[in-house]
Amino acid sequence: MKATMISRQDCLARDQDDALAPLRAQFDLPAGVIYLDGNSLGARPKAAMARAQQVIAAEWGTDLIRSWNSNGWFDLPKRLGNLLSPLLGALDGEVVITDTTSVNLFKALAAALRMQAAHADPARAARRIIVSERSNFPTDLYMAQGLAQWLDRGYQLRLVEDPADLAQAIDGDCAVAMLTHVNYRSGYQHDMAAVSARCHAQGALALWDLAHSAGAVPLDLNGDGADLAVGCTYKYLNGGPGAPAFIWVPKQHQAAFRQPLSGWWGHGAPFAMEPSFVPADGIARALCGTQPIVSLALVECGLDIFAQTSMAAIRAKSLALTDLFIALVEQRCASHPLGLVTPREHARRGSQASFTHPHGYAVMQALIARGVIGDYREPAIMRFGFTPLYTSFADVWDAVEILREILDTQAYDVDARRDAVT
Amino acid sequence: MKATMISRQDCLARDQDDALAPLRAQFDLPAGVIYLDGNSLGARPKAAMARAQQVIAAEWGTDLIRSWNSNGWFDLPKRLGNLLSPLLGALDGEVVITDTTSVNLFKALAAALRMQAAHADPARAARRIIVSERSNFPTDLYMAQGLAQWLDRGYQLRLVEDPADLAQAIDGDCAVAMLTHVNYRSGYQHDMAAVSARCHAQGALALWDLAHSAGAVPLDLNGDGADLAVGCTYKYLNGGPGAPAFIWVPKQHQAAFRQPLSGWWGHGAPFAMEPSFVPADGIARALCGTQPIVSLALVECGLDIFAQTSMAAIRAKSLALTDLFIALVEQRCASHPLGLVTPREHARRGSQASFTHPHGYAVMQALIARGVIGDYREPAIMRFGFTPLYTSFADVWDAVEILREILDTQAYDVDARRDAVT
Repeated sequence: MKATMISRQDCLARDQDDALAPLRAQFDLPAGVIYLDGNSLGARPKAAMARAQQVIAAEWGTDLIRSWNSNGWFDLPKRLGNLLSPLLGALDGEVVITDTTSVNLFKALAAALRMQAAHADPARAARRIIVSERSNFPTDLYMAQGLAQWLDRGYQLRLVEDPADLAQAIDGDCAVAMLTHVNYRSGYQHDMAAVSARCHAQGALALWDLAHSAGAVPLDLNGDGADLAVGCTYKYLNGGPGAPAFIWVPKQHQAAFRQPLSGWWGHGAPFAMEPSFVPADGIARALCGTQPIVSLALVECGLDIFAQTSMAAIRAKSLALTDLFIALVEQRCASHPLGLVTPREHARRGSQASFTHPHGYAVMQALIARGVIGDYREPAIMRFGFTPLYTSFADVWDAVEILREILDTQAYDVDARRDAVT
Repeated sequence: MKATMISRQDCLARDQDDALAPLRAQFDLPAGVIYLDGNSLGARPKAAMARAQQVIAAEWGTDLIRSWNSNGWFDLPKRLGNLLSPLLGALDGEVVITDTTSVNLFKALAAALRMQAAHADPARAARRIIVSERSNFPTDLYMAQGLAQWLDRGYQLRLVEDPADLAQAIDGDCAVAMLTHVNYRSGYQHDMAAVSARCHAQGALALWDLAHSAGAVPLDLNGDGADLAVGCTYKYLNGGPGAPAFIWVPKQHQAAFRQPLSGWWGHGAPFAMEPSFVPADGIARALCGTQPIVSLALVECGLDIFAQTSMAAIRAKSLALTDLFIALVEQRCASHPLGLVTPREHARRGSQASFTHPHGYAVMQALIARGVIGDYREPAIMRFGFTPLYTSFADVWDAVEILREILDTQAYDVDARRDAVT
């Protein structure tokens, strides 16, 4: 028995009933584009231009050096971190926005390894295994390799091939499980509470990368027993291209948190100009050097939009959008060799839907040429991100219709070169 | 015999003859302000606002994810590094603009220590001394402490109290000399060629922090035999508040250069998404994670102004400005307890002039209230930076006149609290 065919009219009706629909007006989206790549670079909040003008013309141009105090530049990593905290299930004073995700991961992993190495139980202090996934976003693995190689104390990565193997891999040899909560390629979402509990039962620490989670799915870091976390502001949080990343250190771990990138912004008295490093109390010890203020300030424009709704409302629409996309692809493109990579189970799904196709790269190029912007990831995966703040149900219908036309007419270049950066 | 008194008319005449004077029109400077703090935060190039508009509205807003390719975002660290290279005496492909000065120093010091540890001579490989100055900018010392502590292989800082003691400190135990070329507080400029030569004669490497040199004094990194260098773009280079920093790795050291922050931007094939790190050829291996594009793009506006003149012309005016400032202070404020900290010798002077005063903090607050913006550094040092691109000789005369009035009338609050961030 076939499911009822979904019409474009059905989608328009859902947009009529969508309480989040008005938020789209707060974003600048180009005409003729259906943007399904907010999981790579979030769209631009309209407010970002005025905020940039304020920071560049008034704060930099006129107030000049005084802005570090008078315009709060020096406190920006902490102030914006506090604005982000509610989306993460974090408390005030547990998050700073600073540096890059890679650099923050280095800090967090180094701190976690040090916490374990300082443990009173010698067997636990001797653990040298970092558990992760082979399918983790590569830079996380690269940073862990860099840290392990430079520490030169026998630290090794243990990479699982399948999330189902994770619990077994987190055993009594595991010092830290370093995992990306939602997989960048498949959209698979780990059960943070269960994995963190498994870590603790085995005496390991749970370090989470939230690059594809923050602003995309509800998070409860403290409630779910995470130990440390890092993430990105330029994807679902719409902070701007390459905007500074974040790091979360919960109150319970702050006293023990020490990291090697001990720059002056992490010093207890940064302007005393003392020659010896003494870490700041609290989350400031996760800071390092002077931050790129213009890019950092724009992060607030994205966060301001989240403050107008709730992650529960965003999640409900996100699941509705991805359910709709999957259903429409399976109804309208059924004759084509598309394979769903993203879990159907809601609890295991992020805010994206990925499909394989033997000519995935070429098909994605054809989609982009028609204004449907998703992206491509090796091997053969077309990735579509759904951002409930600015994506409509009609967008989903139209995107699938364009995909259907491209596939039905084979309107793609199978010899397309895979030289794209993104 | 007293020197001839310098008049304001003399200064106006020098402005008339100043070939750099027209460049001031390319900066946005607030009315009523004499800005002598470009050594902390450079003034705003007028072009920055239009460039921000282009990046935010057109590149982010309209082109969205495609900008990584089509607008050259991914290549920005290298392209801007090549624009900066001529100011440093560096070659194409030796500089990237990325991350913060602190983070880049960590990379460079780690790489230098590794080069030494890998040396064929076991005695040289066993060296564990990092020579620096107690008066170095603190974050450099903090980063070195952080690295040494985490490596846990016996690395130690050997800090000299006086530049004159440096040659002796760089002995056969020294692995790396890590020095800031122009001191942030005193304005003392090291002889890069002589110190680098001393390093090499002793089998050590010379790592230079150019935070107060780039755009301030002529540099010839390759000619002077430097081994590695880092620096800042938001001071004399006018790149914007907290704008990304730079790192220089000369061709001769690139093959041996390995650093622990091995993120995906430093990978040989960043978009192949392979699980193992393989460093890129060339300078790209100094990169780590995704960069803050808006802040990074604005660096170009500052560099564009440097391209219209030469470091030789800038240096000639810089010395004329600091000579004038010192002469006027000594003529007009002779009855007050001001002590020159900055070397009189041209070759040893950066582009600033620092004076001690028992109430230095209070006097600086009074100067700022009157529109003369310098800054204060413990202990008791008033710091005045001179940026030839936008500072006139009349500015210098007027600044000293206001200083004289404040001192003569004791128009400062000796109980002023030293709680300023900057």
